Formats: sequence, structure tokens, C-alpha cells
Amino acid sequence: MLETTTSAIRPPDEAAMAAARELHSRLTKPAGSLGLLEDLSVRLAGLAGVCPPPVPEPAAVAIFAGDHGVHAQRVTPWPQEVTAQMIGNFLAGGAVVNAFARQAGASVTVVDVGVAHPLPVPEPAGSEPTEPAGSASDLAAPRLIDASVRRGTRDLSVTAALTRDEALAAVLTGVRVADELIDAGAGILLTGDMGIGNTTPAAALIAAFTGADPLDATGRGTGVDDETYAHKVAVVRAALARHTPDPSDPLGVLAAVGGLEHAALAGLILGAAARRTPVLLDGVIAVSAALAAAAFAPDAVAAMVAGHRSAEPGATVALRHLGLDPLIDLGLRLGEGTGALLALPVVTGAVRVLHEVATFDSAGVAEK
Amino acid sequence: MLETTTSAIRPPDEAAMAAARELHSRLTKPAGSLGLLEDLSVRLAGLAGVCPPPVPEPAAVAIFAGDHGVHAQRVTPWPQEVTAQMIGNFLAGGAVVNAFARQAGASVTVVDVGVAHPLPVPEPAGSEPTEPAGSASDLAAPRLIDASVRRGTRDLSVTAALTRDEALAAVLTGVRVADELIDAGAGILLTGDMGIGNTTPAAALIAAFTGADPLDATGRGTGVDDETYAHKVAVVRAALARHTPDPSDPLGVLAAVGGLEHAALAGLILGAAARRTPVLLDGVIAVSAALAAAAFAPDAVAAMVAGHRSAEPGATVALRHLGLDPLIDLGLRLGEGTGALLALPVVTGAVRVLHEVATFDSAGVAEK
Repeated sequence: MLETTTSAIRPPDEAAMAAARELHSRLTKPAGSLGLLEDLSVRLAGLAGVCPPPVPEPAAVAIFAGDHGVHAQRVTPWPQEVTAQMIGNFLAGGAVVNAFARQAGASVTVVDVGVAHPLPVPEPAGSEPTEPAGSASDLAAPRLIDASVRRGTRDLSVTAALTRDEALAAVLTGVRVADELIDAGAGILLTGDMGIGNTTPAAALIAAFTGADPLDATGRGTGVDDETYAHKVAVVRAALARHTPDPSDPLGVLAAVGGLEHAALAGLILGAAARRTPVLLDGVIAVSAALAAAAFAPDAVAAMVAGHRSAEPGATVALRHLGLDPLIDLGLRLGEGTGALLALPVVTGAVRVLHEVATFDSAGVAEK
Repeated sequence: MLETTTSAIRPPDEAAMAAARELHSRLTKPAGSLGLLEDLSVRLAGLAGVCPPPVPEPAAVAIFAGDHGVHAQRVTPWPQEVTAQMIGNFLAGGAVVNAFARQAGASVTVVDVGVAHPLPVPEPAGSEPTEPAGSASDLAAPRLIDASVRRGTRDLSVTAALTRDEALAAVLTGVRVADELIDAGAGILLTGDMGIGNTTPAAALIAAFTGADPLDATGRGTGVDDETYAHKVAVVRAALARHTPDPSDPLGVLAAVGGLEHAALAGLILGAAARRTPVLLDGVIAVSAALAAAAFAPDAVAAMVAGHRSAEPGATVALRHLGLDPLIDLGLRLGEGTGALLALPVVTGAVRVLHEVATFDSAGVAEK
């Protein structure tokens, strides 16, 4: 089934891109004055194969959650239970991703692909202490999909994190979620993630796919101290030395040093690309998964929009490798999909220009 | 009356800022993980004098339009009639600012403070060729305020662009528009501008207020060629040499080398600051006006949020002088308020976090 998805991913449509460039030259603004938004709208025309491309609405955030055996190596000060607890927070609408999603009018789907601890029992209806007064919204409540492959990965510093079959199952879950969201009407998918310890496998994936040194691919995640950071780099370096993952075998790389949410995000990206639907990438977890997706199908990059530049240094390494310029650069390092949500209006705005702005001719405005 | 406004502008409230920092430390996210959004929300708490500060809604864009005597020096290839024609486009809803304002749910008010040519006669109701099908919105149609001080400035390369009285009239118009929009409910004001040739006075204002060399303060505006650019720099340099404006006399600077829209924007900013209402700055015209506002009342900077980094180099010079970090950096150089509108969801999101996100305690999430 993965082969069916990857073989459906096509290169961008050059004619639609040329039509978008030509349309831009006739709109009532100086040529090039919308900077990167013009390039973005041209790319989205190429992805859709039509000019103007559809306005990317509504938006759907998919948060893939998993835990990590490498947590045992003390690469983070946070207890592993927080992954499950934060899922409770997402479902109750109390996390930052929920606030941003309500503002952006985006739906939130949480997918358990490998959380280690039991999820909290939902609050009974009518008592929602974390949903503040006044924030009620017409958006459907966040939804949980149980697609657990296993209750957390194995410790990648000791053994392969996943079997190839487990990694494939997570990738296919991502493809299936993309299909479901697009079938339900989503015009753009946004990547989200939750998993205590998941910047360690992200760093390993980025080093494996780009050839970067683990020091350049590894960051401080939630903000670890100098000692923990040095240890984290050493863990990543040792894991790569142990597994020597082959970047031309993305499933093998994901199995050796990845995470279940990373694998599922790679699948989500491939699923979106196969449906010619843009996928707005969040931070370092998303871009590490995007490297895997690009290794499965290089033309998948045409569907990717880099939402923001995470404060994690590995994110910049990965974006450079993918040739993507991020839309927002505000030092965020939260994950959840928050950076992608902040960038969503830029993407929508870039496309709306092609639909809504008058031409010099139609508006009776003189040209220079 | 300007004295009444400037004397009402107070420094930020330290207690509200401390409360916002403390609240951030209890929200369900790693400390500092929202990067510049945390700083922004703290600043807005200080401006409002309360934590959390009000969610900055609804948003109102004020586009001040004027023409420029220096157009005679051929500093731009665009005919001056385009200023009036673009006002027609704004009122018909066909410009980029309209597309972005519809998306952001912002109202648009166009203020003629000094357009040289007659405004186009509006289309009869029922025939709105530039308003595309499907973009209908509940937002009120763009509104025009006639507050013309004179039909364009004098040529600043030959004489003072404005008398002090004319400059003051434009500043007071900006204050009045701020008051009207805030009285009508606006929670945040966005600066917009239209005026063929207006990057030339903006460069002169930036050089005058910051001491920057005209070469560093002057950009290519709508995209002039090398020869026109060199000439434009020479015009700015000659104007500064002729007028030797005193940066401690902002009204004198605006009169000597400014524009009516620049002066009115300075007034809008002062009016917003006096009402403790944030004002989201667009590009180079806005930040040149912001320098004037800061010269009138240094504490006005607390009300300013830099929406984006314009491609115009003078914008970066001005932002550095004001100590402001822009939220968006996408190479835009359109004006109209477009860059401010793209940044609006970031500002709103930063404040919503303080209102809507659960604490570790309330959500039952463990801390590290």
C-alpha cells in the first residue's frame, strides 16, 4: 500500500506554475512586491495542477503522539507520563495548539501511535475546567484516534527502535489519517506531534538523512542543561555508529533510530502529497519526518510548506536539505503543531491573492 | 490637542508584565518555548496595565493616502494618478489589503489626507467587478474619510514639503482616526498607507531621525532601476542638506521632509498609545512615522508592534532604532497594511495563550 501512495506522487505542474506567475504580473501591485508569498502561491499552483489553486481551507491539524525507549538514557528531565497527560490536555482543549487552532479555525485530531502510559480518563461532560469561559467555538471537539503500534519504541541507543514492520505500520497510519482528513474536506494538513524525548530520534533522523554531524543536528529540546545536552549528542552519535542507517532506505532509518510519531508524520506527508494537498510542517519533529518522506518519494517536497524555523538547530539543517524557506521565525520550540498554525494565515493569504485581487485592467489602475 | 495626547502616554505597567511572566511559567508548555510570542504577550500586558491583556480584537486597518511633490523629481516610474486609482481599488475591495483584511476579519478605513488627483467615482451598487464571487464577507465595506490637508505635499527637494500647521493638521487627523476606531470597538489598529513616491520622504525621515546615511535609509520602493535609485538617494541627501531637520523637533522634521500620510500615521500611533491600544506597524512608511511618534513621546514605543520586516533597507534601520523585532520577514514591499495584516494572527495568538491555555496544575500535567 505504501508503494501505491508513493507512486501517485507527481512532480509539480509547470503549466499551472507559469499561469500563476503570469497572473501575478497582472494584479494591482508592483511586480514581486509580495516577496515569498508569490513564490509560495506559484508552488501551490504547481502542486494543485491548476491556477489559481484551491484556497487551502479548512485546515486540519494531526497530532501524532508516541513515547521513546531512549527516555531511559535521561535525555530529558520530563517524566514520560507527560505524553499521555498532554493528550488529555489536547482533548480537553487546554493546550497552546488548541488555542491557536480555535483562532485559525482548524480541526485537531490526536493520533496515539505509540504512547507508553494509559491515557487519562476524559472528564465527564459538563465539567471542563481547562476550557475557559468565552472560548467556545463551533469547531468540533478534538478527536482521538487509537492507532497504537506499540507502547513506545525500544531504546535506540541499545537496539533498533522499531522493527521494519512496526515502522511501516506507523507510516501507513499516517497515510490513512491523511486520506481520512482529506476525504472529510480538509484543504490543507498541518503536522503536530507530542512525545517526551522525541527530539532525540529527530536529531538522529536528521543526521542520518542529511549527513550532518550529530552536534549540528541535536538541540536542547524543551531546554536541557549543558550536561544533559552533551549526553544527548553522545547518545545520538553512538546510535548512528551502532546502526549506520542507510539514507536510501528510509524505512530502515525510521526503524533504527526513529519514533512512531516520526514515522506516522512521514506517512501523513506522503498521503497529502499523493492527494496533491499541501502539508504545512511544524518544527523539528516534522522536518525530520519530512526528510524520510522525501527519501520515500522526492516529489513529495512539492507538497511541503515549512511553517516556521524551530529554535532547534536540526530543523534548519533539515530545511536546508529539503530546500524549504520557513514562513515564520520567532524562536518557537513547543511542537504540537503550534508553529504550523501560526503560519497558516500566510499560506491562505498567498492563495487568496490569486483568487481575489483585481487586475490593473479590471480596476482601472495605470501601470508604470 | 497634540499635547493632550502625548501627555496621556504612560510607560508600561511593570506589575502587569511581571504577572504575565509568572502566568507563562505555569502554563502547560516548557518555559520559554513560545519564543518571541512570550515577550510580545508580556509587552501587551504592560501596555494594557492588566494581565492577561485584552485579546486584540476586532482589528481595524487605517490606510492614509497622500501624494508627494517630490514625484516631479522622477523618483518613481509610476504616474501620480495611481494613488487615487488605488483608493478606488481599496473601496471596491480589489486590492491585496482587502483580501488579507477579509481573511483576518479586519475593517478597512481609507483616509485621504492629501491625494493630488480626484478620486474615482464609485461603481454603482450591484456592479462590483473587482469583488469576486464567493468572497462576500460580513465585514462592513471599506470606508472613506475625507480629511485632505492639501492636494499633495510640496517638492521636499526644493522647499519644505509642508508648513508646520499642515503637518500638525495631518498628525491630529491621525489621532482623531485612532480615537474614532477605538471608540467604535477596535482592540488593535493596523497601519496602512498609499502614496506614489512615498518611500522617498520615508527615507528622508528615517535618515533625519536615526542619523543614518541616506544610502542606508533609501530603498528601491516599488522596484526602481539602478539609475533611478542613485538619483533617489541623491534627492534624499540633498533634501537633508537643504533642511538640516532637527530630530528633537518631530513636527519640524515632518514638515520639512515628510508626507501627509507619514504625519497622519504618526498621529494614529500616538492616539493608539494614549488609549493603551496596540498598533501593529506595516512597512517602511509606518516605521518612518513611528520614529516621529517616538520623538513626540518616547513611551509610545510600548504600543508599537512591528508587523514585518519590509524589503526596504530603511525599515530595518528604523526598527533597530526603535528596538523592535518584526514578527514576519517574507520580503514584502507592498505597503497598504498588508504586512501588518499577515502578522495579526501572531499578535492575537500570543495574547490568547494567556487567556486560554491550561496550567500544569489545572490540567494535571507533571512538571520536569
